[in-house]
Amino acid sequence: MKLLTVARDLGRRKARERQQLFVAEGVRTVDELLRSTLSIRGVLIGSQFDENPRAAGLNAMIAERSIAVERVDFREFASAAQTDSPQGILAIAEVPSWSLSQVELQSKVRLLVLDGVQDPGNVGTIIRTAEALGATATYALPGTVDLWNPKVVRSGMGSHFRHPCIVGTWDELDSFRASHAVAVWGADAAGTALTKSDAPDCLFLVVGNEGAGLSAESRARVDRLVALPISSAVESLNVAVATGILLYELRA
Amino acid sequence: MKLLTVARDLGRRKARERQQLFVAEGVRTVDELLRSTLSIRGVLIGSQFDENPRAAGLNAMIAERSIAVERVDFREFASAAQTDSPQGILAIAEVPSWSLSQVELQSKVRLLVLDGVQDPGNVGTIIRTAEALGATATYALPGTVDLWNPKVVRSGMGSHFRHPCIVGTWDELDSFRASHAVAVWGADAAGTALTKSDAPDCLFLVVGNEGAGLSAESRARVDRLVALPISSAVESLNVAVATGILLYELRA
Repeated sequence: MKLLTVARDLGRRKARERQQLFVAEGVRTVDELLRSTLSIRGVLIGSQFDENPRAAGLNAMIAERSIAVERVDFREFASAAQTDSPQGILAIAEVPSWSLSQVELQSKVRLLVLDGVQDPGNVGTIIRTAEALGATATYALPGTVDLWNPKVVRSGMGSHFRHPCIVGTWDELDSFRASHAVAVWGADAAGTALTKSDAPDCLFLVVGNEGAGLSAESRARVDRLVALPISSAVESLNVAVATGILLYELRA
Repeated sequence: MKLLTVARDLGRRKARERQQLFVAEGVRTVDELLRSTLSIRGVLIGSQFDENPRAAGLNAMIAERSIAVERVDFREFASAAQTDSPQGILAIAEVPSWSLSQVELQSKVRLLVLDGVQDPGNVGTIIRTAEALGATATYALPGTVDLWNPKVVRSGMGSHFRHPCIVGTWDELDSFRASHAVAVWGADAAGTALTKSDAPDCLFLVVGNEGAGLSAESRARVDRLVALPISSAVESLNVAVATGILLYELRA
């Protein structure tokens, strides 16, 4: 099938989940992808890319890895792009298959669990932050935006290609807990104030939806609710900012 | 002049600066504005607002404050709105006139200085974070996106209406420094690692542009560059996340 057709199709979550493929769009994201170990199926280039100052460098990397290239005109490219002003380059790559069992090998664990976080920009920023601050993996529960949504990938700034991103359920987390000493903390304004000395060796940190917070399912499973002390005038911190502070304070 | 015309005009930064007015759009933002002490010139309501479950509550608050209301059809409303799916309510209010002299009264100061931060969502989130974490004020240097840009206001989630937001230059900051013992720190990956015990009583914390970081002008003025320790695989944290962690670590 033509890459253009595949790229358009991968705009839908169902297609991404069925094919276990995703689209990385834009110079910066494709550059990070080319430097990663992920399997790249092909690169779609629109005519607008030719004027990009980084075209020569990227084309050389693509040629070096012998990756299939399909060239289309700028209008066709725009039909597959998810950005308003496409830079004219996107790559189709395989979703890496990380699993919880790979987490088991480590002595200190910081598993960031996303419970219904919905905004693609927030989730991409969270994945970037999780990698930067040394989280073991990011784990998305049902109700969370697809981690491989093109906007999430773009906001991730390349972190998706290195940091383990796992999609799963509470049942799987419970199985892991059954054989490991794991503390499960949920971020919630009604929680006890975080103190640095608290940090356990193996921690699941659960952060909830932008508006509704943690789900009932998560509330039922956490050992403790933790809060960041903030001004009473403000309802909450942005979820990516709160996650950043929590991961920083709790870094292993 | 009709509110509809004013609201459309205020989409441009020049108009906002000349008139010292801004637009707060959407149920949540207008609700926060109505609860604040800011002067509201009027409210524009589109027909799509009538079906909003929070319409009755907001209409009552507007009536109680005797604020001028102008009703338009949903198409006219959309022509003044900055969102893709307008909720049908916006308010026009006066930009509050905060100044550095109001900062002087406090014994502990955390002045957050934005040096060319460009993304409206980032800046709105930063203002929300600054208020939540007790920063004294947020100060925007030239090159920073307009703090009263409708997208910045929306991302601020109401913090603009309570937290002092100041627009100014390095010259004005220098004048303040001439008569106060102020430490000026810039956030930069090449800086020394932040330690909590460092925090001085009176601090200007400067954060730079998403891509380019601090300007040459800011680099020339800071006493110290501070960094957050992050994985070498990641180039940087998102500026709102980094600001959140720094303000949390350095809170007075």
